[in-house]
Amino acid sequence: MIIIFTDFGVNGPYMGQMKASILNVSTTSKIVDLMCDAPTFNVRASSVLLAALREHMPSQSCVYLCVVDPGVGSPRKPICLNCDGVWFVGPDNGLFQKVIEGCNHVEAFEILWKPSHLSHTFHGRDLFAPVAAMLDAGIAFDKKTIPVASLQNCVEKDRNDTDIIYIDDYGNCWTSLTSNMMDPGGNLKVGNITINHASYFSDVKVGEAFWYVNSSGLIEISVNQGNAKLKFDLKIGDHIEKL
Amino acid sequence: MIIIFTDFGVNGPYMGQMKASILNVSTTSKIVDLMCDAPTFNVRASSVLLAALREHMPSQSCVYLCVVDPGVGSPRKPICLNCDGVWFVGPDNGLFQKVIEGCNHVEAFEILWKPSHLSHTFHGRDLFAPVAAMLDAGIAFDKKTIPVASLQNCVEKDRNDTDIIYIDDYGNCWTSLTSNMMDPGGNLKVGNITINHASYFSDVKVGEAFWYVNSSGLIEISVNQGNAKLKFDLKIGDHIEKL
Amino acid sequence: MIIIFTDFGVNGPYMGQMKASILNVSTTSKIVDLMCDAPTFNVRASSVLLAALREHMPSQSCVYLCVVDPGVGSPRKPICLNCDGVWFVGPDNGLFQKVIEGCNHVEAFEILWKPSHLSHTFHGRDLFAPVAAMLDAGIAFDKKTIPVASLQNCVEKDRNDTDIIYIDDYGNCWTSLTSNMMDPGGNLKVGNITINHASYFSDVKVGEAFWYVNSSGLIEISVNQGNAKLKFDLKIGDHIEKL
Repeated sequence: MIIIFTDFGVNGPYMGQMKASILNVSTTSKIVDLMCDAPTFNVRASSVLLAALREHMPSQSCVYLCVVDPGVGSPRKPICLNCDGVWFVGPDNGLFQKVIEGCNHVEAFEILWKPSHLSHTFHGRDLFAPVAAMLDAGIAFDKKTIPVASLQNCVEKDRNDTDIIYIDDYGNCWTSLTSNMMDPGGNLKVGNITINHASYFSDVKVGEAFWYVNSSGLIEISVNQGNAKLKFDLKIGDHIEKL
Repeated sequence: MIIIFTDFGVNGPYMGQMKASILNVSTTSKIVDLMCDAPTFNVRASSVLLAALREHMPSQSCVYLCVVDPGVGSPRKPICLNCDGVWFVGPDNGLFQKVIEGCNHVEAFEILWKPSHLSHTFHGRDLFAPVAAMLDAGIAFDKKTIPVASLQNCVEKDRNDTDIIYIDDYGNCWTSLTSNMMDPGGNLKVGNITINHASYFSDVKVGEAFWYVNSSGLIEISVNQGNAKLKFDLKIGDHIEKL
Repeated sequence: MIIIFTDFGVNGPYMGQMKASILNVSTTSKIVDLMCDAPTFNVRASSVLLAALREHMPSQSCVYLCVVDPGVGSPRKPICLNCDGVWFVGPDNGLFQKVIEGCNHVEAFEILWKPSHLSHTFHGRDLFAPVAAMLDAGIAFDKKTIPVASLQNCVEKDRNDTDIIYIDDYGNCWTSLTSNMMDPGGNLKVGNITINHASYFSDVKVGEAFWYVNSSGLIEISVNQGNAKLKFDLKIGDHIEKL
């Protein structure tokens, strides 16, 4: 199974071109679009999101094809990682940092294989998709081991921001806080407003805001049958205060 | 074939997480996203839409995985229904009422099977998707027969609203009227404006509004090569008068 | 492999209904959504886009199911074309003109086969999808050879507009210029502003605009980590000057 995680958007030909590129190499691969609206150009938020989503995915053998790559065309390395038996393919720009931090055993490789045609701006289609397909199909390709410590980071060591990293179509606002960073007695502050914990949407009145541990293990600010993004005028990157 | 009908939105990881959950149980299941922008939180409109769409789908063996579930986490039952040989899986909140009304023979079951991990807010991924996969793959799971009459309704018996239940990306406005509720000589009134019938888009001038029986058997208000939603400032829930 | 190219939008049931219709005929067909937000009602722009996208797709045996069809319901012919061994299925309204111009050998057929139910407005689901499935599965159906010269055109012979034909979710603006129409020394003019060439996003500063040959071989106007559509207030159809 190949799982795609990108910031390409739900529109346009990019996802389709990547899928055709996969099926061109490996006609029987199963492909799942996990997400194609990861925070655009935002490698740190995407890294937090990817690690959280991965935690709650089936643990069977699979290949994550991940492309949030504002530096495409620059000399950043193409890499693939074996993280506790699961493969990740994408750019060496810090996108996998949070996944790596959550793993016991990681092997890192620079991808040396090159396609016959490599466009300047779409390595997702031309390079990463065929590599993911070869990994999924068990086809060998040219790569070399590199130290995990040599990989790029997306977050400085002591930085520990609490901010909005994703907003879904309902207007639910996902924060960078994982479930172990909050206990149910704690509150969040959004601007001047204090937000309490609830376990379920139906635990609060229609229209009322609350925070909870979402189904991917992140702290999320929601409004029961409403839109937290609109209610609090939130956007990706907005700071959230922990009380 | 598993057919997904939800209000999860085209963005975000929810559809991908459900698909991975299906493939984790049944690796060879075919999955079709019928719709992931059903009217948000609106069980009645979603019920009308689901029944209409189902009428025009292939009649072969399939499983509908349906999640429009504003009460997720509350004690509403998880159910599956066999409706004239086709399976429906989802919450017991009235979502299947209109499908049931259109069927000859319905068997209803409460789902007793529980996954090893059930999140508070994403029963689509954790419970309904694996059940749909088991139904599709012919894997037995724990369930018990319940009376069809015990299921929740989404519409009171004598309520018979005519309203907008869906608006597509072209701005075409789908109403809750089915084709047998209008004859071609009838008109619709939107605000102060009377709208006549036409059979085809090309039967009216570019920019002209008309109503017609859409390809799912519902009465729809459209503008030839234009946008009815913008032209008449319509939104889901707006009342439409039958003249 | 069946590759879908439409203007149906990412929302709504249309793509799902087409896929169910394909799988009803040919249960093992691989389906790739290449694009479902082709320029709405805009056959000329869609034709340029389809030809450009096709150039960079895998060259293996496949069937393009293409529906940009503002005249659906009118007497325009349903056709299928064999273009250098690749099949194209859709309406005879000029949509395939640019593909044909780029091919060495084209055979054109009028589709005579009719489904048991043909709605007025959704030939994509009722007619074109089953035909694509039959072509993909090698199932014969009723069709007759017609002269390629008899097909409808979408562009008059001496018209040679330079305009925006597509805008992606990042705000990148695709023009109708193919790579051979510009050399790197040339500039584009958008309103009063002159835009220079760069090869890569990372060749210019964050926030700076440039034009480049995109991964589908078209000249595109972009802003490094920004949004060209918003920066220059561009929309599909806007004229671009070549300096």
